[in-house]
Amino acid sequence: MATIDYARRVESYYPSKVREVFALAAKPDMISFAGGAPALDDLDFDFLADASARILREQGRAALQYSIGQGVPVLREAITQVMSLEGMTAEANRQVVTVGSQFALNLVAQNFVDPGDVVLAESPSYAGGMAVFRAYEGEVRQVATDADGLVPAAEGRRCRLVYTIPTYQNPGGTLMPEHCRVELMEICERHDVYVIEDNPYGLLGFDGATHRALKADHPERVFYLGSFSKIFAPGLRLGWVDPPAEHVAMLVGTNETGVLNPPTFTQLLVAAYLRDDGWQDALGHMRQVYARKAGVMVDALREHMPAGVTWNDVAGGFYVWLTLPEHVDAYDMVAPAIDRGVVYVPGVAFYVDGRGTHELRMSFCLPSTEQIATGVEVLADVLRQESAR
Amino acid sequence: MATIDYARRVESYYPSKVREVFALAAKPDMISFAGGAPALDDLDFDFLADASARILREQGRAALQYSIGQGVPVLREAITQVMSLEGMTAEANRQVVTVGSQFALNLVAQNFVDPGDVVLAESPSYAGGMAVFRAYEGEVRQVATDADGLVPAAEGRRCRLVYTIPTYQNPGGTLMPEHCRVELMEICERHDVYVIEDNPYGLLGFDGATHRALKADHPERVFYLGSFSKIFAPGLRLGWVDPPAEHVAMLVGTNETGVLNPPTFTQLLVAAYLRDDGWQDALGHMRQVYARKAGVMVDALREHMPAGVTWNDVAGGFYVWLTLPEHVDAYDMVAPAIDRGVVYVPGVAFYVDGRGTHELRMSFCLPSTEQIATGVEVLADVLRQESAR
Repeated sequence: MATIDYARRVESYYPSKVREVFALAAKPDMISFAGGAPALDDLDFDFLADASARILREQGRAALQYSIGQGVPVLREAITQVMSLEGMTAEANRQVVTVGSQFALNLVAQNFVDPGDVVLAESPSYAGGMAVFRAYEGEVRQVATDADGLVPAAEGRRCRLVYTIPTYQNPGGTLMPEHCRVELMEICERHDVYVIEDNPYGLLGFDGATHRALKADHPERVFYLGSFSKIFAPGLRLGWVDPPAEHVAMLVGTNETGVLNPPTFTQLLVAAYLRDDGWQDALGHMRQVYARKAGVMVDALREHMPAGVTWNDVAGGFYVWLTLPEHVDAYDMVAPAIDRGVVYVPGVAFYVDGRGTHELRMSFCLPSTEQIATGVEVLADVLRQESAR
Repeated sequence: MATIDYARRVESYYPSKVREVFALAAKPDMISFAGGAPALDDLDFDFLADASARILREQGRAALQYSIGQGVPVLREAITQVMSLEGMTAEANRQVVTVGSQFALNLVAQNFVDPGDVVLAESPSYAGGMAVFRAYEGEVRQVATDADGLVPAAEGRRCRLVYTIPTYQNPGGTLMPEHCRVELMEICERHDVYVIEDNPYGLLGFDGATHRALKADHPERVFYLGSFSKIFAPGLRLGWVDPPAEHVAMLVGTNETGVLNPPTFTQLLVAAYLRDDGWQDALGHMRQVYARKAGVMVDALREHMPAGVTWNDVAGGFYVWLTLPEHVDAYDMVAPAIDRGVVYVPGVAFYVDGRGTHELRMSFCLPSTEQIATGVEVLADVLRQESAR
């Protein structure tokens, strides 16, 4: 047996409290408010089965072969259409297709985060994103937010990256308003700081309206991260990054060192899915489903939660962010909630510094409306009991 | 526009001369001895089309959803069967499925390579592998080899990893003999150094015989890297690492930070492919095809190459490694060869220190036997002209 002697960067890894919760909750019939898994019921599985079979029969030799590190051109062309929905005039020669936007985040961090660099993130922010910056030995500082999203803070240390999810934020659910977007970009331009705009939920506004991406007006300032996980299928693990033009070659090279090329076959499948107009119809239907589920969740919160519990308005995305009375610890509530068949993610998972003890995230994307109504009632009951102890 | 100011680790990236060659060679009708792309003609595309369609129709909700970071259990079970062919009694609970074995290499490097650490590799070795260690700021030292493969060297600097491709090496084509395997493992046990056993070609011995993996007798000393790219389909980008048991959890966590989970749908597809006995028949046929192609290449070399050119014996894998007379530079020959429609990889691509100037790698995996015969004749002619200058 060898001695365990990990690389020093391992010390800066960010232990995921989300993972811990998922492990506890792997029981049948659990009502899960924990994950960010999309509802896939509206996908046209027959269409996808036929498209897959056709790709393998008609162009199997190409689909199962190596392809280029930047991603297959036909998918990058389709991506420009998707990006145009949020005001971006993208060019297919600068997008880099990645194994989920998660890996895109790794590529950016690998090239721009030196050990000790500060990466600014929203407060709270996506646990899996902050884990990436920590893996590259960056120091994540979560800056003050109000209900409007990120308020950039001047910092003493070197800072090259701001990480933001401006549209239907994870976990906060907030939509960054226009004046904050303007202010954020002004500050980042002034201080020569890049913005990572992580936008998996941008097309999931309940009213069907889209919001102009930060990238649209600042193409050379923003690493735009797109994902097919929330609007199509996370099991394909495909996303992309549209970087400032001068960094395309570097990101392609890093993508190649990481995975040689993104998977060919499923890139062609996504391209086929986007070629058919059905995807926008399916997306429209998903938006309605999520809107209804969010409505049921908020109604149930209103009906069952005791005084002193507050939550954000939800206009899109997957999450409701709850603030409990200060004397209640949302992490301590996890075990009793799971005992009664309901799981959520305690707020501490979304901070790097131990904050969030009386906050929690509830996702409404996957459970049924019946489960949502039942689960909120159970949680309210657990909260009352914890509160009384 | 922001200032380019990359992270310091970018300075240690390894510029790929292979990539440069590929860019030059992207012309129609080129006879390519350059790539490591497998011949896919023997795949049963109808079977794969049907299997894909069935997965999406019958279990589409699971196939297109997130799954676990370690990889789906049904694929890991199938992998244990594949590993048993080379003498390994693997357990499905310790393999970690990755986006190609390329990403497995990244996971190991991320956790075990500190800046300045020495990673020992064969001389010559796989360019894409050495690029990974460099990306994590390791210093690759390529140690002396004879025709037998790796001869480990004691080094002054801290060294935790030896990277080896013992079976049908890339690019050397060599099969490490038993006594060298024993010696290598003894030295690594004594010095408490881990071995990364990269084994994409192990099942591609022309005679159908397999060789006992280093992992088989040293499960806690070896990170075993397996790949479906050479024995099935590189376009799926699926491979795995079977690490020492104590490092499974760390690699799973790192896999999650990188890509959340390996793609679900295509993992199920590979599992379906391996469930059917047809894959071993297809592999047997591929072995015969590669054996025939290698034979044609070696015969053509014997017929056309001038005196002073030597090459390794080839008993499996994809490559013939050529040594030219010392006054001929294989890199200088690339452009005239491409002008005449033939491309290969110059030897310098497989060294980190500028060696390999009069060596080159020729792959016989993808071109037809006719192309191989023609291409070798052309190359011999180019060589004679360069030699005369």
